[in-house]
Amino acid sequence: MKNVFLIIFSAFIIIPGYSQIEYPYPLPNKQQLAWQEAELGVVFHYDLHVFDGKRYGQGNNRISPFPDYQLFNPENLDTDQWVKAAKDAGAKFAILTATHETGFALYQSEVNPYCLKAVKWRDGKGDVIRDFVNSCRKYGLKPGIYIGIRWDSFFGVHNFKVNGEGEFQLKRQEYYNKMVEGMVTELCTNYGELFEIWFDGGADHPDNGAPDVLPIVKQYQPNCLFYHNLQLAEARWGGSESGTVPYPCWATFPNFYSHAGDTHKEHIELLKHGDPNGKYWMPAMSDAPLRGINGRHEWFWEPGDEENIYPLASLVDMYYKSVGRNSTLILGLTPNPQGLMPQGDVLRLKEFGDEINARFSVPIASVSGEGDEIILKLSKKQAVNHIIIQEDIKLGERVREYKVEALSGGKWQLLCKGKSIGNKRIQQFNPVRTNKLKLTITGSVSSPVIKSFNTYFIENP
Amino acid sequence: MKNVFLIIFSAFIIIPGYSQIEYPYPLPNKQQLAWQEAELGVVFHYDLHVFDGKRYGQGNNRISPFPDYQLFNPENLDTDQWVKAAKDAGAKFAILTATHETGFALYQSEVNPYCLKAVKWRDGKGDVIRDFVNSCRKYGLKPGIYIGIRWDSFFGVHNFKVNGEGEFQLKRQEYYNKMVEGMVTELCTNYGELFEIWFDGGADHPDNGAPDVLPIVKQYQPNCLFYHNLQLAEARWGGSESGTVPYPCWATFPNFYSHAGDTHKEHIELLKHGDPNGKYWMPAMSDAPLRGINGRHEWFWEPGDEENIYPLASLVDMYYKSVGRNSTLILGLTPNPQGLMPQGDVLRLKEFGDEINARFSVPIASVSGEGDEIILKLSKKQAVNHIIIQEDIKLGERVREYKVEALSGGKWQLLCKGKSIGNKRIQQFNPVRTNKLKLTITGSVSSPVIKSFNTYFIENP
Repeated sequence: MKNVFLIIFSAFIIIPGYSQIEYPYPLPNKQQLAWQEAELGVVFHYDLHVFDGKRYGQGNNRISPFPDYQLFNPENLDTDQWVKAAKDAGAKFAILTATHETGFALYQSEVNPYCLKAVKWRDGKGDVIRDFVNSCRKYGLKPGIYIGIRWDSFFGVHNFKVNGEGEFQLKRQEYYNKMVEGMVTELCTNYGELFEIWFDGGADHPDNGAPDVLPIVKQYQPNCLFYHNLQLAEARWGGSESGTVPYPCWATFPNFYSHAGDTHKEHIELLKHGDPNGKYWMPAMSDAPLRGINGRHEWFWEPGDEENIYPLASLVDMYYKSVGRNSTLILGLTPNPQGLMPQGDVLRLKEFGDEINARFSVPIASVSGEGDEIILKLSKKQAVNHIIIQEDIKLGERVREYKVEALSGGKWQLLCKGKSIGNKRIQQFNPVRTNKLKLTITGSVSSPVIKSFNTYFIENP
Repeated sequence: MKNVFLIIFSAFIIIPGYSQIEYPYPLPNKQQLAWQEAELGVVFHYDLHVFDGKRYGQGNNRISPFPDYQLFNPENLDTDQWVKAAKDAGAKFAILTATHETGFALYQSEVNPYCLKAVKWRDGKGDVIRDFVNSCRKYGLKPGIYIGIRWDSFFGVHNFKVNGEGEFQLKRQEYYNKMVEGMVTELCTNYGELFEIWFDGGADHPDNGAPDVLPIVKQYQPNCLFYHNLQLAEARWGGSESGTVPYPCWATFPNFYSHAGDTHKEHIELLKHGDPNGKYWMPAMSDAPLRGINGRHEWFWEPGDEENIYPLASLVDMYYKSVGRNSTLILGLTPNPQGLMPQGDVLRLKEFGDEINARFSVPIASVSGEGDEIILKLSKKQAVNHIIIQEDIKLGERVREYKVEALSGGKWQLLCKGKSIGNKRIQQFNPVRTNKLKLTITGSVSSPVIKSFNTYFIENP
């Protein structure tokens, strides 16, 4: 233990301006740890175009101011109902788009006039962020904020850049950047502690002429996960919007922001898999919209998508391939023009939460421990077909390779093996009757610390 | 008279889409007549930059969004005090900038979020236009609206054109135009009858990609003077911001919008003088800011301009050279950051109104009549040094040349002569003792109709 302590101590070197912890070997900071332990969150997308009765076309919408912002009128808005639906799915945190690509802000901004002050709804006094945060507190979910600054079809911003030319463009860019910084300050100071702040498409870098948002978040929300800009990424996108990551998936990454690799392909591979030797702790997000089948993939409510909610089996599979692969799953939810989560979505979320609970809330047996070999004893011989392993990631990802065996017929029979474990590794295998399982760490960078090694039997998984 | 009637009848030919009346010879429409008969108005300029404690720089401001619109905070706003000050000056109408070059709207707009809904002042419920119009009704002044659509430093509009390129520019231009049309509709429908609508720098032409504002004004405010775009000018700028026009100044103009002449110089000369043979009725405005001496020329309140209010003598001179030359005088007034007309300005306006009243409210003698010669008899022989002549401009400007003589020592002595009369001609001459004046029309296009021919004696004019 003495050596381990020394290594951890030496690892607490803060990179100036960032809160990432350097090699050897990287460790999560407080907000990264909380984010990974949360495992499942949701992101609600809500914006003006939900109200126009038309299907969304991102390319055109990005360059077309929304025709009539007075259409924003969620008459039955009930964020309690939204958050309850997320809680029923098992989400531990929930995020809401304060702004998206229209530039319209879902709260009472004093720096962006294109906000809920401008609409007739609730006599210009509505604040969806306030309602949402209150609902999160009520239901015990951690609230986060998504803010789109990369696109603003109203003000005329395309890929961070104010459209235009000459001195006027420069001045409006300056103004826009200040406006964004003002919005980030408002969001970071008016709604209590935030769990995550998610900059749509990243927030670029102030050296590239983009708003300087990182110091604001760090000043006012030191415990908030910062996702992300070219100065810092406390999490990374998992390389797809499929709600899954491939295996293995490491929480470490070779760069302090979430771009790496010489080619786009390498970059995407690194986002998906991470890098066990990466110097920076940057766990992977698996994100997917709940309405994502039949060729649809919708972050926003749109008419006629009721049939395109993922079936339960897909969601469970997604869970295995995200949470079960050391990645935090964030499901995209779509409140409708009335201001409610549609009933079909609500029911599916509850089915999903219930199914995960039924599968994993009570293990047959559980053990924790340190070292290269952990034995899990069952009270009696019985069938098992799942294991869940968790490293104590406060101490980093130490495991590089492992295998799991069961004592069966007097012999150790291989059930499964793998590489990354991290926060959580779920594995399914053919049922085997046993009263003893063994986890063997066949490769590690330091003495493995296993927070839990559990087994389960799930009928018809 | 029969011939005159026929001519007038034939003159009532409406140009499709406009309300101007065609040659021979042009006549004013109802709103032009009212505007000329009003003679004196004011325009209040009020915008965000009044509140920043800095002097205004138009060039830079046009391409720089105002840094913090929350500075708008006229704590003691009292539009009654504004309008009372205008009334004391003798103004018959008052105009207020609903928007100027910042793009910020001084009212509760539902189409332009950058408006009083966005500010903390009055909890986002303030409406300076509403207050102003109410004050005008209270004091019996006719309210008008000034709207700047040519520049909008917030949205990014420069000389009508949304700054930018490509499809995004086109879409934002389309949006901006619709927003402007929406604002014009709001202003034309929410505040009762308007006397004048003044588009800053003109509203261009829809065929050039500018907002299509004329049909909106014509639909909702058929009695409102439209000033102006490239489709119609019901008045014209008098060619300077000196509060004066040169003499002669005709109410007629050779084009249906207020651009004519082959060169800039010719254009300006035509704006200043008009054209007695012009086919279109388009009387001249003389505009000047009240704070316009010592090298200052300020339409907006700015710090340190208290010493730069025109002295009374300058204002009286301005009156002679505008109202007295057949032009409507509009004085620019500057409410301060507290929301009040500054005391020095208020006092000067009252001095001015009192002086004009003292000079002209009671003539020594007055007569009206038709024909080439009008005799004005005084009750007794006495000194006179001013005459005021008014044509009955409902019937057009018929006089082309005239002279005024006094019977003195048994002979007709020439007092003054001139060309244009129109709504009002004021002339001063060396005092002469007489009991009879004669106005002789030495040139006209039809039988002259003189609404009034008055004489005055003003001590130390």
